[in-house]
Amino acid sequence: MRDLDETSITDEVLQAISGTPDPRTRQISEALVRHLHAFIREIEPTQAEWEMGIDFLTRTGKMCSDVRQEFILLSDTLGVSMLVDAINHRHPEGATETTVFGPFFVEQRPEYPLGGNISEGVEGKPMYVSGVVRDTAGKPIAHATVDSWHSDDEGHYDVQIRDHLAMRGKFRADEKGRFWFWSVRPKFYPIPDDGPVGEMLRMQGRHPFRPEHVHFMISAQGYETLVTHVFIEGDRYLDSDVVFGVKNSLITNYKECQPGIAPDGKQMDRSYLALHYDFVLSAEK
Amino acid sequence: MRDLDETSITDEVLQAISGTPDPRTRQISEALVRHLHAFIREIEPTQAEWEMGIDFLTRTGKMCSDVRQEFILLSDTLGVSMLVDAINHRHPEGATETTVFGPFFVEQRPEYPLGGNISEGVEGKPMYVSGVVRDTAGKPIAHATVDSWHSDDEGHYDVQIRDHLAMRGKFRADEKGRFWFWSVRPKFYPIPDDGPVGEMLRMQGRHPFRPEHVHFMISAQGYETLVTHVFIEGDRYLDSDVVFGVKNSLITNYKECQPGIAPDGKQMDRSYLALHYDFVLSAEK
Repeated sequence: MRDLDETSITDEVLQAISGTPDPRTRQISEALVRHLHAFIREIEPTQAEWEMGIDFLTRTGKMCSDVRQEFILLSDTLGVSMLVDAINHRHPEGATETTVFGPFFVEQRPEYPLGGNISEGVEGKPMYVSGVVRDTAGKPIAHATVDSWHSDDEGHYDVQIRDHLAMRGKFRADEKGRFWFWSVRPKFYPIPDDGPVGEMLRMQGRHPFRPEHVHFMISAQGYETLVTHVFIEGDRYLDSDVVFGVKNSLITNYKECQPGIAPDGKQMDRSYLALHYDFVLSAEK
Repeated sequence: MRDLDETSITDEVLQAISGTPDPRTRQISEALVRHLHAFIREIEPTQAEWEMGIDFLTRTGKMCSDVRQEFILLSDTLGVSMLVDAINHRHPEGATETTVFGPFFVEQRPEYPLGGNISEGVEGKPMYVSGVVRDTAGKPIAHATVDSWHSDDEGHYDVQIRDHLAMRGKFRADEKGRFWFWSVRPKFYPIPDDGPVGEMLRMQGRHPFRPEHVHFMISAQGYETLVTHVFIEGDRYLDSDVVFGVKNSLITNYKECQPGIAPDGKQMDRSYLALHYDFVLSAEK
C-alpha cells in the first residue's frame, strides 16, 4: 500500500483492519472507518479545520474528571445518547420509557433508608418523592434498588459546586416495591457549558438548557435495569431539551401539600411538594 | 420535540442545529450528525459498547500532553490524516508529494546554521542530509525555511525518551535554495502504542510500525508549505505503514560514503550516509 489517494485510501484502511480477530470489533472498526471517511469526504476539511477538530477532541478529553464527563455531554448534545437509548429499548412491552443517563451519576453515592432525606442540608422547597416498582404484569417487585439524583433549586448538581454529595441516594424498595424519600425541588438548568461542548452549542446558536427533572435508575434481579427521568409538566424547556431526552410518558406534576402529617407520617411544619411516579421494569432477556 | 425515537431523532437534531449562524460551521455540524448517527444505526451499540466508546475517547484525550498527541495518532492510524492530506493536495502540478505531519513536531525547535549538527550528542551512524528547494518551474527558492525531524537509531524521537531536544532543527536555505546538515540515521519504529491507539491496533491485529523516514516541513513566502517525509528504499514496513503515509516518489536511498572530506568540507574520520532529496514547492493559491 503505497501512493494511496483519496479514492484508494478507504479500501486500504479496511484491508489493514480486515484481520481483526474478534468479529464484533471488526464490524465496529470497519463501520467507523467507512462513516468517518465519508464524513471527511463530504466536508473536505482544510488542514486548519482538521487541526481544530483534533484540538476540540483533545480539550474535550482534558475536560473530563471524576465529576465531569464532557464526552458524554457531547454524545448527549449531538443526539447520540438518545439514539443509542432508542436502539436498546425497541420493545418496552409496557415498561417505563427510558431516557439519557447523563453525566452526573456518582458510583460512590450514599445509601439511605426509606424515608431518608437526601438533601443533606441543601436549602430548597421540600419534595416528597414516592412510587412503586412493578413488573409488566403489574406485580410489585420486592426490594428493587432505586437510585435517584437531581439538581438543587438553582439547577446545580452537588458535584458541580459542593464539596459533599447531596440530592442523590440509593434506596431499597420494601416488599411491596414501594419507595419514598425526601429531598428539595430541582430546577431546569444549563448543562455545563464552560468547556468545548458549550463552545459548540454557542457556535450552533443553541441554548444549553434541560427541563426540570429527577433522575432514576432502578434495578432488580431478573429485570432490565431502567435508566430514566421524571419531568415536570409546564417547564419551559420541555420542547427544546438540549439533549433531546423528553418523553411525554415521563412527564408528571407535583402535588402541592399543606403543612401537616406527610404520607410517611412525618410532621411537616411547612408546605411541600409531592412527586409520585410508578415504574415498570421489563424482564431480563 | 418529545418522544423522539430512532427514526425521528436525526431530523430533530438537524433541526436543532439548523440555526447555526456561520454557514461552514452549520455544514460541518450537519454532516457530523448525519454520519455519526448513520454509524450508530449501522453498528447498534449496546449501552456497554457506548460506554466503552466514551471511555476510549476520554482516555485518548487524557493521554495527550505537550509531547504526545494521541488524537493525531488515532487520525493517522484510521487513515483520516492521509485522506485529509490527499483532499488538500489534489493538484500538486509537479510539486513534491505530501504525507502526514505526525505527532512529533515541536514548535519550540532549535534553529541551526547550514551545516549544523542536529544530533546533539545522540549516538548513531552519521547522516549528511542535503537538498535544494525549487519552484515548479525549477527555479531555486532562496532562503526557504527547512524544518527536519526524525527518530534516533532505535526508533525513538527525542520527546519520547530524552530530556533535551535532538534530531530536529530549523534551517534557512541559502540564496540558491540549498540546505545541508548533519544528524544520525533514524530507524523504522512503532508509533507510541502504550495508550488507547495501541490498544486499538492490538484489537485490530495490526502492527504499530512506520518505515524509516526523515520528516520535512518546507516553507517560503508566496508558496504552499510542504509537509512530507523522505523514506528509505528497502525498509520492511514500506508496504504496511501503520499510518498509510508512503508514496513512491518520496522513497530514496542513502549513499554510503567513506571517511574523508564531506561535501560541506567537513573532515570525516568515519564512514557516513548521505541522504539527498530535492523539494519542489507549489505557488500559493
